[in-house]
Amino acid sequence: MDKLTVIKVGGKIVEEEATLQQLLSDFSKIEGHKVLVHGGGRSATALATKLGIESKMVNGRRITDAEMLNVVTMVYGGLVNKSIVARLQSMGVNALGLTGADLNYMRSDKRPVKEVDYGFVGDVKEVNSDLLADLIHKGVVPVLAPVTHDKKGNMLNTNADTIAGEAAKALTKHFDVTLMYCFEKKGVLKDEKDDDSVIAEITRPLFDQYVKEGIIQGGMIPKLENSFEAIAAGVKNVIITKADEIGKNSGTTIHG
Amino acid sequence: MDKLTVIKVGGKIVEEEATLQQLLSDFSKIEGHKVLVHGGGRSATALATKLGIESKMVNGRRITDAEMLNVVTMVYGGLVNKSIVARLQSMGVNALGLTGADLNYMRSDKRPVKEVDYGFVGDVKEVNSDLLADLIHKGVVPVLAPVTHDKKGNMLNTNADTIAGEAAKALTKHFDVTLMYCFEKKGVLKDEKDDDSVIAEITRPLFDQYVKEGIIQGGMIPKLENSFEAIAAGVKNVIITKADEIGKNSGTTIHG
Repeated sequence: MDKLTVIKVGGKIVEEEATLQQLLSDFSKIEGHKVLVHGGGRSATALATKLGIESKMVNGRRITDAEMLNVVTMVYGGLVNKSIVARLQSMGVNALGLTGADLNYMRSDKRPVKEVDYGFVGDVKEVNSDLLADLIHKGVVPVLAPVTHDKKGNMLNTNADTIAGEAAKALTKHFDVTLMYCFEKKGVLKDEKDDDSVIAEITRPLFDQYVKEGIIQGGMIPKLENSFEAIAAGVKNVIITKADEIGKNSGTTIHG
Repeated sequence: MDKLTVIKVGGKIVEEEATLQQLLSDFSKIEGHKVLVHGGGRSATALATKLGIESKMVNGRRITDAEMLNVVTMVYGGLVNKSIVARLQSMGVNALGLTGADLNYMRSDKRPVKEVDYGFVGDVKEVNSDLLADLIHKGVVPVLAPVTHDKKGNMLNTNADTIAGEAAKALTKHFDVTLMYCFEKKGVLKDEKDDDSVIAEITRPLFDQYVKEGIIQGGMIPKLENSFEAIAAGVKNVIITKADEIGKNSGTTIHG
């Protein structure tokens, strides 16, 4: 099977002119098949503010009412996505911007209301990867916006990390997939205060040990749990790195 | 060669809830391969107004400065396009929303400044229809937003009629193409005051005669000239009809 790299970059990097240009230039140089997944939260908040729409967040997640859904559809699926696609095309990358509604590649259900009503937020239920894989084999580079649909006519706001993970898992049917998450740090650190103390490789037993020893803690635990889940679903490697290090053999690699 | 219908619908129809739903329902029932091209001017103007951006028009064409380009990219490529795609998916149509940057399917040059500086407006220079045709053969229905790119990293605002005409012409390489323009009237009328006086068929000699006789006049002349240009470039038929008549054998058909 051909190799495929699915790279997720956070909003901040794709929303600032200088970092976006550098990131896309680095991304364009990565060999082989690839997929880019992007955020765009800051731009959505900025547009919402200009329109007098309040951005409500609970536990770092956006509450998406009908007005905010229009904003994220415009910003994620339109402005940020097409800006990336046009720039990649200028670099010779045959990019194709997609929301989950396009080609029905990712369907989600509106999140049930429990303690919190997140509004028009989607939990991924189905990924149709055949047409996507076919395009990738033809040299196309999908650029995935963090919006899905419910196949009942509605768009739904969906976390970009989730999109990357679900797309990567589904594409294991067609490719040897490496999933790369770009964060603020160079990888999983042995010492939080030392940016260069990156742990090069983590396996499940090592992870359990590091958690027991308190080396890995807090928000990194669910991130790594998600990574092991992706590995269990067939993803070959998960790499946690910094956006300006993509294309280099750095960061933390999570194996099965 | 397989048949393909390229249908262009104006902004007004796709921007009002009731007419949009009816249009897409009619469109979903059209047999065979098809492409939908949409406008979105009213929504762009509405968003621009909310953002305090002035909409400047010259000869019915929008002057697109940098701020307005962001608005049209968001509205045409994001909100209107994805709203259509999601609804079509709910009707079982495997829609794929595209701007010219996606798959580099339509490249344009920024319009040179003459008497009027239209700003970030693109004149179409190149259509790459191979991947598009391949997707259509696989049952995908492209939904084309009126935005192109210059392959230098910039999006450009482009007239939806032009997009429909250029896409139709390029796709004649792969299909027997019928190009359908939806207007306010049921077709080209023999008597402007009589909505039912539709001329069923127009050929070049008949057109010349009608113009001489003053039956066809004003804005309809350039529209028909464009239709004959499409015919000359290989399009089989151009049909001018009303949006609520698509799928019926009505309207005016322009032959070579």
